[in-house]
Amino acid sequence: MKEEVRQQGPRGGEAAVPGSQAHQELEQPHLRSKPSELQLDFEKLDGLLPAVVQDHHTKEVLMVGFMNREAWEKTLRTGLVTFWSRTRQTLWTKGETSGNHLRVVRLWTDCDRDTVLAEVEPKGPTCHTGARSCFYEEIVDA
Amino acid sequence: MKEEVRQQGPRGGEAAVPGSQAHQELEQPHLRSKPSELQLDFEKLDGLLPAVVQDHHTKEVLMVGFMNREAWEKTLRTGLVTFWSRTRQTLWTKGETSGNHLRVVRLWTDCDRDTVLAEVEPKGPTCHTGARSCFYEEIVDA
Repeated sequence: MKEEVRQQGPRGGEAAVPGSQAHQELEQPHLRSKPSELQLDFEKLDGLLPAVVQDHHTKEVLMVGFMNREAWEKTLRTGLVTFWSRTRQTLWTKGETSGNHLRVVRLWTDCDRDTVLAEVEPKGPTCHTGARSCFYEEIVDA
Repeated sequence: MKEEVRQQGPRGGEAAVPGSQAHQELEQPHLRSKPSELQLDFEKLDGLLPAVVQDHHTKEVLMVGFMNREAWEKTLRTGLVTFWSRTRQTLWTKGETSGNHLRVVRLWTDCDRDTVLAEVEPKGPTCHTGARSCFYEEIVDA
C-alpha cells in the first residue's frame, strides 16, 4: 500500500516521511491560478458550481451553496461570498440582509474545476438559524 | 454587532464568551438524528445531494461529490463514502479501484437537509491525481 501511495503521488517518493500517517506522507501540490486564466466548468450542473464555505481559522465547514458565473464574478470582485439562490432565482450575497457576511480569505477549485472552496472570515453566525455553521445535525447510528 | 450576534444565536447571550472572537462566541447547537428518522431532501437537485468530504483529523476539505439515495444508503451501510457518478451514471464507492477508501467517522447534514458533510479517515490520497485533496489549485488575484 505504501508503495502504491508513493507511486500515485505527483511528487513521488520524495514526499514520503517514514513513520508518519498516510495522510501526512503526501505533499499536497499547490497550483496558483489567476481568475482571468481559469476556466471553471459551469456546464456540468446547468450553469452552477457547488461552493463549500470553510472557516479560515477553525476549518469548520460553515455552509454549501451554488454559484453561477455572475455570482462567482461578484464574489471575486467584492470579496464577499455571493451565491445564486435556486429558490429565489436571484443573486444572493450572504449577509446582505443579516449583515453576517462571509469575507473571502482564500479561494480554491478542485481537480475537475467544477467545485469551489472558499476559506472565509465569517461575520457572526453563518446559518439563518443563528448557528455558527449550517452543519449542526449529526447523523448517528445508535 | 455583538448584541445582534447574541440575539440571533439560538442559545442567546449565554453563548457569548468575553474577549473571544466572534466565531467563538457562538455555541453551536448539536442535534443527533438517526438515519431512519431523517428525511434528507433529494428533490432539490433532481435526486442528488452534494456531499462534502472532510478529513476528520486535519479538517482539510478533500473532495465534493454527489449522492443519490442509493449512494447515501450504501455509505451508511458500509461506512465507506459512496457517490453517484454523474459521468458514468453508476454508484461509485471511492477507492473501489484505487484502494483509497474514505472511511466515515462522522456524518452531518445542514439546516435544509439538502447537503451532507462526511468527516472521514482517508486511506491514501483522495484525488485521482495522487494529491491529498482535490482542492490544490488556489485562485489568486495577483
